[in-house]
Amino acid sequence: MSTTTRVYAFEDEVAAGRRRALLGGKGAGLQEMTRLGIPVPPGFTIATEVGPEYRRLGGPPAGLEAEVEAALARLEARLDRRLGASKRPLLVSVRSGAATSMPGMMDTILNLGLNDETVEALARESGDRRFAFDAYRRFTQMYGDVVMGVDHHLFEDALGAVKLELGSPRMLDSELDAAALEELVARYRRILIDRTGTSLPEAPREQLWAAIGAVFRSWDNVRAVRYRKMQGVVDPLGTACTVQAMVFGNLGETSGSGVAFTRNPSTGERMLYGEYLPNAQGEDVVAGIRTPVALTATASVPGREQTSLERRQPDVFAQIEAHCAQLEAHFGDMQDIEFTVQEGEPFILQTRSGKRTATAAVRIAVDMVGEGAIDEDRAVQMVDASSLDQLLHARLPDPELLEARGTRAVARGLPASPGAATGRIVLDADEAVRLAAVGETTILVRRETSPEDIHGMKAAAGILTATGGMTSHAAVVARGLGTCCVVGCSALAVDYEARTIAVARGEADEARVFSAGDTITLDGVRGLVYAGAVDAVAAASIPEYDVLMQWADARRRMEVRANADTPRAAREAAAGGAAGIGLCRTEHMFFSPERIDVVRAMLLAEADADADVTGPSRRRPAPRGSAGHEADRAREPWLDKIEPMQRADFEAIFDAMEGRPVTIRLLDWPLHEILPHGAEEQARVADLLGVDRRELARRVERHKEQNPMLGHRGVRLGLTMPGLYRMQARAILSAALACVSRGVAVKPELMIPIVGFASEIEAARALIDAEASALFERVGRRVEYRVGTMIELPRACVCAGSIAEHAEFFSFGTNDLTQTTLGISRDDSAGFLPAYRDRLGLIAADPFAELDADGVGALMALAVERGRQTRRSIKIGVCGEQGGDPRSIAIVEKLGLDYVSCSVPRLPIARLAAAQARLVAKHGEPG
Amino acid sequence: MSTTTRVYAFEDEVAAGRRRALLGGKGAGLQEMTRLGIPVPPGFTIATEVGPEYRRLGGPPAGLEAEVEAALARLEARLDRRLGASKRPLLVSVRSGAATSMPGMMDTILNLGLNDETVEALARESGDRRFAFDAYRRFTQMYGDVVMGVDHHLFEDALGAVKLELGSPRMLDSELDAAALEELVARYRRILIDRTGTSLPEAPREQLWAAIGAVFRSWDNVRAVRYRKMQGVVDPLGTACTVQAMVFGNLGETSGSGVAFTRNPSTGERMLYGEYLPNAQGEDVVAGIRTPVALTATASVPGREQTSLERRQPDVFAQIEAHCAQLEAHFGDMQDIEFTVQEGEPFILQTRSGKRTATAAVRIAVDMVGEGAIDEDRAVQMVDASSLDQLLHARLPDPELLEARGTRAVARGLPASPGAATGRIVLDADEAVRLAAVGETTILVRRETSPEDIHGMKAAAGILTATGGMTSHAAVVARGLGTCCVVGCSALAVDYEARTIAVARGEADEARVFSAGDTITLDGVRGLVYAGAVDAVAAASIPEYDVLMQWADARRRMEVRANADTPRAAREAAAGGAAGIGLCRTEHMFFSPERIDVVRAMLLAEADADADVTGPSRRRPAPRGSAGHEADRAREPWLDKIEPMQRADFEAIFDAMEGRPVTIRLLDWPLHEILPHGAEEQARVADLLGVDRRELARRVERHKEQNPMLGHRGVRLGLTMPGLYRMQARAILSAALACVSRGVAVKPELMIPIVGFASEIEAARALIDAEASALFERVGRRVEYRVGTMIELPRACVCAGSIAEHAEFFSFGTNDLTQTTLGISRDDSAGFLPAYRDRLGLIAADPFAELDADGVGALMALAVERGRQTRRSIKIGVCGEQGGDPRSIAIVEKLGLDYVSCSVPRLPIARLAAAQARLVAKHGEPG
Repeated sequence: MSTTTRVYAFEDEVAAGRRRALLGGKGAGLQEMTRLGIPVPPGFTIATEVGPEYRRLGGPPAGLEAEVEAALARLEARLDRRLGASKRPLLVSVRSGAATSMPGMMDTILNLGLNDETVEALARESGDRRFAFDAYRRFTQMYGDVVMGVDHHLFEDALGAVKLELGSPRMLDSELDAAALEELVARYRRILIDRTGTSLPEAPREQLWAAIGAVFRSWDNVRAVRYRKMQGVVDPLGTACTVQAMVFGNLGETSGSGVAFTRNPSTGERMLYGEYLPNAQGEDVVAGIRTPVALTATASVPGREQTSLERRQPDVFAQIEAHCAQLEAHFGDMQDIEFTVQEGEPFILQTRSGKRTATAAVRIAVDMVGEGAIDEDRAVQMVDASSLDQLLHARLPDPELLEARGTRAVARGLPASPGAATGRIVLDADEAVRLAAVGETTILVRRETSPEDIHGMKAAAGILTATGGMTSHAAVVARGLGTCCVVGCSALAVDYEARTIAVARGEADEARVFSAGDTITLDGVRGLVYAGAVDAVAAASIPEYDVLMQWADARRRMEVRANADTPRAAREAAAGGAAGIGLCRTEHMFFSPERIDVVRAMLLAEADADADVTGPSRRRPAPRGSAGHEADRAREPWLDKIEPMQRADFEAIFDAMEGRPVTIRLLDWPLHEILPHGAEEQARVADLLGVDRRELARRVERHKEQNPMLGHRGVRLGLTMPGLYRMQARAILSAALACVSRGVAVKPELMIPIVGFASEIEAARALIDAEASALFERVGRRVEYRVGTMIELPRACVCAGSIAEHAEFFSFGTNDLTQTTLGISRDDSAGFLPAYRDRLGLIAADPFAELDADGVGALMALAVERGRQTRRSIKIGVCGEQGGDPRSIAIVEKLGLDYVSCSVPRLPIARLAAAQARLVAKHGEPG
Repeated sequence: MSTTTRVYAFEDEVAAGRRRALLGGKGAGLQEMTRLGIPVPPGFTIATEVGPEYRRLGGPPAGLEAEVEAALARLEARLDRRLGASKRPLLVSVRSGAATSMPGMMDTILNLGLNDETVEALARESGDRRFAFDAYRRFTQMYGDVVMGVDHHLFEDALGAVKLELGSPRMLDSELDAAALEELVARYRRILIDRTGTSLPEAPREQLWAAIGAVFRSWDNVRAVRYRKMQGVVDPLGTACTVQAMVFGNLGETSGSGVAFTRNPSTGERMLYGEYLPNAQGEDVVAGIRTPVALTATASVPGREQTSLERRQPDVFAQIEAHCAQLEAHFGDMQDIEFTVQEGEPFILQTRSGKRTATAAVRIAVDMVGEGAIDEDRAVQMVDASSLDQLLHARLPDPELLEARGTRAVARGLPASPGAATGRIVLDADEAVRLAAVGETTILVRRETSPEDIHGMKAAAGILTATGGMTSHAAVVARGLGTCCVVGCSALAVDYEARTIAVARGEADEARVFSAGDTITLDGVRGLVYAGAVDAVAAASIPEYDVLMQWADARRRMEVRANADTPRAAREAAAGGAAGIGLCRTEHMFFSPERIDVVRAMLLAEADADADVTGPSRRRPAPRGSAGHEADRAREPWLDKIEPMQRADFEAIFDAMEGRPVTIRLLDWPLHEILPHGAEEQARVADLLGVDRRELARRVERHKEQNPMLGHRGVRLGLTMPGLYRMQARAILSAALACVSRGVAVKPELMIPIVGFASEIEAARALIDAEASALFERVGRRVEYRVGTMIELPRACVCAGSIAEHAEFFSFGTNDLTQTTLGISRDDSAGFLPAYRDRLGLIAADPFAELDADGVGALMALAVERGRQTRRSIKIGVCGEQGGDPRSIAIVEKLGLDYVSCSVPRLPIARLAAAQARLVAKHGEPG
């Protein structure tokens, strides 16, 4: 071999470290199996480094042909077959495969080497003319499609036409006889000439080089390029090209094809699990036309043990069993293995990590540590963190699975609260309560929910809204209740008068209308709505789960906290292993109907004092700091009513967390949700305030905002109505003092939302510190507390250095930060984000579910750097929805954050994902 | 003097370059006048460098006392007076003054050196006991306030009490006799003891050192620190402290105080202009108790020439005239000079650049170049760019001036379109038209306006809305019409039924209600609303204006373009000197009622096809790129109706701009403004579309957004409804082709709005390029065009590098960029931004009027750097509201942008401001 080797036989020596980069994933796997002594059909791989030159030149670089010829000659010699020979012709497959698996590239051409002459040789050698022409037909179609670029539908149309001419349009492909297949090959070739002006090359070498060229060119096709861009794949080399001898499982009763899992992929049990189809090719097993037999006698249908591969061909079975054991041990993971037996000789065609249920994943990982096959680090990395949802909540089956059974979602919204729920549609809360009382399960469907609906939300089995986002009233309340919920389902038009829900026509479905009383099912994990009842899969836990979580916790660098707004949620958070509360949204404490009117009265008391009618704009600092504004006095009586409610809640939350830090976000009112909109509500508040209804309506009108997300909220309200934050500081700190006096440790952290200017956090902090000093002096005792800020505006990221002067911690509010950085309201994104991702391919993932690393992540990196420059010890975390998303957790691990905080149900996912992210930082990506 | 001199007499040698840094602004000015031979009361300055040490030590550093004593001794020797002497006592003023003028620091203490003994000496020497005790009273109050920190209201209360005891609560201060003043001094001193526990020091040296200490400490007081922070003042040294001998203008008929302007500050005419009050102190002139006389005979009231200073004391007048001429020549600007004549001897106390009207500013600048006093660069820098508004539009007087006349604004909104308008309130458009027909002038008042109101907006003299921002329908249409307009006046509650407008209670005013037919006046420059009629000042131009603008244009680096949406605005832009159109908002072409329904029909045609009901989320690229979506077919007929309207508009705009570049922003619908809300409008659109009204209402409901600013707009609509941008590309390019065929040059630039992802601009560009190719092929001709993007989202700034791969130009949309970076909706900011600026002092300026340099500016800098890294030649401009704001223009000059684009009325301001910004970059800040 020359010094510039670019072609490697499977059995050639390549350093393990370079194997993947040089040969691509597929080539490396085949070489690895060959080196392990596993029987693999022989072949060779043209290295990835050829790609760039090939693409630049538009053809093979100098010397490559000679190398490929040499490798081919070795292959021919080894098998005693020759490409294009009219006796014992060599047939090969040609495959692409880069270091990173890449959809969109050319995949595989099978049976290359067939032409009108060699097909006869194959027919003679196999004694099966049908087999030979079926192979030829498949080759023609694949070559036409992937090398010549002819639309595969044309071939399917021709196949249909032949069946029709035979008078059996519904006949199976396997029922076509040799003559029909021969006719089909002829028609396929005519299609190629019609469409491209050229014909399928007869010369196998010409076929081979065209296929090799197609492989290398496929790296640059539009879909592949876009995929790499979206996924951020940087790979200057690209794909390799593997040429492998064909084997056939359909050469008689001693031949066959099968699939073997090294463990049970449903339960994780250690056993050989799989299927075998005698006298068949691999794709026949997948097509499911004939019923395969079991691999083992024990797994067979009782009474049919003799049909199992184990009994049919004990020798073959033993070999396969040994190969499976060897491969699992070698790769350190449960394997999904494809094999073909050709005339009594087994070949392994492919091995890969097997897909499995969450239960199986956890069990396999823990078992394999027990067996000494892998270490705990590896076990922690082996389980898909997101899949833990399956262990912890009832859920609907995969939509693909349901669709295969003819059940298709009728609408899609945002997955606001996990679980599954089936029930009858009710359109108002009272009805939900009434039906619950008579034992009916209901789904409460509303345009949006408000505090008036709470009793109905508690009574319903599921909640569905047409508007609102993941942090809307409905979403927050549902998560608090643990009720399955889908929000922001924009295809719905709810008609309260007609008591119907109209669902807009989707891409493939017709519009439809449901009436109150009709049954629907919600998928809270995926945000889907189904007509009628759909059975859910129950949650199930196993002892191995606790073992795995212990290992994960021992490996995390980041703390995992929970977002919890109520004493109940705090208790669940503590039970779920939260290191503290990362986000306690105080405004959520007011969603109950008995509290909301007081809050409304407070907000609307002398509301007009906010209007700032002064002279011209004066560029001068205020003479007396940010203190006092007369309108605040009117709010004081209402704040006095609210304070004890808050204090009691905080005390219960501190109790539940037993000395763990509790980060309390001061009020960030969703004004549009809190304002009383209905006449009845307005009347109640008007009576409370003692103003007439017309005046109240005017005040409400003045508080309405065009873009509430960018409105008068968070610290903006806190500073313009300073009584609010003063009251909250008192409530928090007096609750803390009460706990301490009962011997309960507390770590209160007061967090200021929607800070954009350093002057805001400075002023809010001054307000809190002054209130704290006064309180401590009054009661004669102190308690430690910290003051920090949400970082949820791009300006806060850019100006994090000056903000950190006044903040002891940062918590990234990635919901708002994503909204502002991208200029996308989550509540309104349903009109285009799904299309961006699914139909147009403009984005890889929903940025509200998975942190946008390039945009939001870049701003976060800036904030971390600048914040730590000012205050080295500053504690930084994230508490948006993405805090519970494994990919997002991996991103924030890289950003060096100190903690993530997520909703209570996502705690296990976050704990595992944080451990995995840390292990990646330590070891790199797992195998 | 030692080598470590830190105290400088006014006559000491200090290098001119170091003067300001060392002595502060005030000290440097006094030294400069002294060096020019101008008679200035002598004194000395303690250098700024003392400050940091003083503050660190909490007292004077070693050796300072000796230096001050030495300087004081020189002063005493020179005047033959001694501090604290019982005969000829020396009295001094003590003043602060840093290199940068700084509100919030201690200002001045006058008459220091007085005590119970020296006051008697002063009485004897002046022969005026009342004068002496008045001086003593003033000193006691000033010292008590600024050195001892006692609230000045207490002194005012005591003064009121004395007047009450004398039985004349309304008597003037000057009517108090010596005995009353002596009593007042005694009461003031008691207040000091009550409040501070210490008394006013008797020893003048103790007074002096306490005052010096107060000056240095005042640098670090809260207001001063906050001011520096907000203004970004970095000055490690801080204030100097100046000690100056007192002179008195109230020592008889040969004494007096006066003010002189070196030119007429109203007209700019070259003449000595001012007032003189014999036997009076400077503050008496300001207080306006007695009527002063003119300086010159010619300026006197006819018949009273003899009272003028010129005739009274010709020798004194001649000296002052000479000093004025010398000072104007020296400083190269019209001066505002304060002087005191003490027993026939004139002293100049202060000189500074004089405030002037815009007309005067322009005339003075041009005249002084003619006189050879200054060069053209300096003339360009001398005129406040913002003030040009005064020259170009009728406007109301300053609010302070009106308030002095008892006229106070009743409400405040956003200054959407300049000018002034008085008229009767009308609440609907038809009424405005009806009244206009009978010759009434009206102000159209609406909650918000919509295309239905256009005829009324045309008929009204002014427009006022309760909601909406600077880019709302009302604002855009009003600017297009050149009609005075105030929007977003959130204190208003418009009641259409009752035909009233309720104005909420402001900080100082009572709530009030106006009815239709009442007269109000709008100030479109400041965004104010007045009850009743208020006279406006007419616009006036002068020939010097054109000269100045020529000089400015020759000095600009940046291009100035205009934002113009209609052929009429384009013609005005060309006339106003625009180098092109920087922003043509195509959606504004549809605000006319005859077009809007077609647009609505287009938008709502098969609107349900946008709902994307598919299976589960699929992480795969779309198989066939971003092309085609069946729903687009339903929109085609409507788009076909719209296309010719657009094409005609574009053609007329290209014609008006005669080959200058025209940047056309593709549609960025304000959906909430375009959707038909009223029953009548919905009915019309339903009929057009041939659907029933209920169905139409459902479609409208589905398109409603919670946060339209962050919704389905801009490129998001362009890509999900690709027919839209295709139609626009055709309309623009076929208009361009039509112009070219008529011999009119065109430079069309297509701009994509709301781009956040590089994939969006890539896809939009592909759409446009494909449409262009098809068009060019169809007609057999081509035209050059460019495609670029708005940069108006933080993500676009961070990802500008990849976006620049597909964009030939960037235009910062600073309106949206400010909204998203700060997370503040301009439309909803009225509830807190004015309070932030005026009441709480949290921000220095409205970020929507003046670019937020630290936040938005930092992101822009990032975008410029990353964009140019990818594409060196990329053209970058700004086209938000801030494009016409001088301070913002200074910021973008520093960022190195290529152009600014502003509304047509602001073109002159932008042209001048751009020249000034460039000159600052070249020479540094003026003066």
